Amino acid sequence: MTGSLVVVGTGPGKAELMTPATTTALALATDLVGYGPYLDRVPVTRDQCRHASDNRVELDRARHALTLAAQGRQVVVVSGGDPGVFAMASAVFEAVETGDPAWRALDIRVEPGVTAMLAAAAEVGGPLGGDFCAISLSDNLKAWTTIERRLRAAAEADFVIALYNPASRARPDQLGTAFDLLRAIKSAETPVLFVRAAGTAETKVAMTTLAAADPAHADMRTLVLVGASTTRLVAREGRSPWVYTPRSERGVRP
Amino acid sequence: MTGSLVVVGTGPGKAELMTPATTTALALATDLVGYGPYLDRVPVTRDQCRHASDNRVELDRARHALTLAAQGRQVVVVSGGDPGVFAMASAVFEAVETGDPAWRALDIRVEPGVTAMLAAAAEVGGPLGGDFCAISLSDNLKAWTTIERRLRAAAEADFVIALYNPASRARPDQLGTAFDLLRAIKSAETPVLFVRAAGTAETKVAMTTLAAADPAHADMRTLVLVGASTTRLVAREGRSPWVYTPRSERGVRP
Repeated sequence: MTGSLVVVGTGPGKAELMTPATTTALALATDLVGYGPYLDRVPVTRDQCRHASDNRVELDRARHALTLAAQGRQVVVVSGGDPGVFAMASAVFEAVETGDPAWRALDIRVEPGVTAMLAAAAEVGGPLGGDFCAISLSDNLKAWTTIERRLRAAAEADFVIALYNPASRARPDQLGTAFDLLRAIKSAETPVLFVRAAGTAETKVAMTTLAAADPAHADMRTLVLVGASTTRLVAREGRSPWVYTPRSERGVRP
Repeated sequence: MTGSLVVVGTGPGKAELMTPATTTALALATDLVGYGPYLDRVPVTRDQCRHASDNRVELDRARHALTLAAQGRQVVVVSGGDPGVFAMASAVFEAVETGDPAWRALDIRVEPGVTAMLAAAAEVGGPLGGDFCAISLSDNLKAWTTIERRLRAAAEADFVIALYNPASRARPDQLGTAFDLLRAIKSAETPVLFVRAAGTAETKVAMTTLAAADPAHADMRTLVLVGASTTRLVAREGRSPWVYTPRSERGVRP
C-alpha cells in the first residue's frame, strides 16, 4: 500500500467549524502528527498512532510525517485553523524540498480550513469587508524590521490588518511597538479588536480604539484586528456594537 | 417567535468544504436569501423559501433579508466562500446601520467559512505561508487609484498577494495593468498562479512567472496568487511543481 500525507487544519476550535473533508481525512489516517493541543481536538479512534510534539519544531515534525508516509502509512499532519496560514503546510513543503528526493513522489494533499482571522471577524460582524492583510508578529522566523516595514505599508495603503501571534511570553513588548508605529500613520479613532479564542466556546472580544489599545489584552490565543479608515461601528442597545468595513471606500450607501 | 438572521458562506464549492455550522444554519432556515448560483449549492428542503437575486444588488438583498427577519422569519443569507471576505456580511451590517433602527435589536450572526484564497493555496501547496494580503480588483466600489496604491504597497512590502475578482467582462484590462505595476517592483521570476474554481470538482491551475503572466488566463471564477520574493517551487517528476512560501524570510532551513 502506498503512503500518503494530508495536511489539515482543525479550524479555530469548535467541531462545527472543521470541514467534513478534514474530518474524513482524520478518520482515514493511520498516523496523526501535530502539536499536542491540536491533536487533542481530534476524536480518538482505535488503531491510530498519535505523534504529538512541541510547537517549536515544525520542520522536524514535517520530516517525521514524511518519513512515515514514505514507509507506507496514511499520515495526517494536524494544524489549527487553516494549515496554509502561519501553519504546517509551508513546513511540509520545505521539508520535501530539502529532504529525501523520494518524498517528491509521495501523494501529498492540503485540505483548507477556517483560519483564525475569519473566525475572529465573524464574532464581531464584518470587519474584513474591504482589502486586508495578515501579518504574523512573531520574529522567530523573520526580522522585526521586516514586520515594521509591512505594518507601515499596510497602514499607509489603508488595509484592514489582522495580526497573528501578537504576543507571547518571550515577546511581551512587540505589540505595543506595533501599535505605536500604527498610531503615527492611522487615525486615533481606528477600531481595534482583541478577539481571544475566536470560534471556540470561550471566545472573548475586547473592542477599543487605536489610541487606547492596550497590548496587555493580547496573549497567544488572541487575534488582533485593526480597522481601515472606513471601518465602522453599529451601536446596539445593551450589547457591544457590530463592527464592519463597507465594501465601498466611499462609505455607507443611502 | 423571534426572527433571526445568519450570514453564511458555502465555502469554495465542494460540499465537503462547507462547515457543519453552516450546514446546520441552512437546515434551520425558513428563508434563504442569496445570489442564485450560491443558493443552487444548498440542498433543497421542504417548506423553505428561496429568494434568489442578481449578484449586483447586495444592499437590496441585505435589506430584504433583514425585513424578513424582522417579520419573525429564520433567515440565512448565503454567500460563497467566507461571508466576511468580499461578500455579504459587510452589506448586511451596512444595511443595518442605514436602515430601520429596529433591525439593531435583531439576532444577527455570521458563520465563517473557507474563502477562495485558502482553497486556491491548498490546491498548489503552501503559497500563503508568509505574510499576505487580499485585494479585490473590482473597481465597482472603490477607485482604481486605491487599488493601484494597495498593489504597490503590497509589492514593496513583499506580501504574498491574493487577487479576488481579477477580471470580468466589464473589466478586461485591469489585471494586465495590475501585472504591469507589479513587474515594475517585483522580480520577473516571481511565481504567479491562476487557480480557477478552487475547491470544486472543476479546479484548473495555471502556473507561470510574473514576466510571462497572461491576464487572459483569468475570469470571474479565478483567484490569482502572486508570490513573495521568498516563494519557491518544488519540482516533481511528471507533475506541476508544488509552490510554497517558507515561514522564514531567510529561506529554506537545512
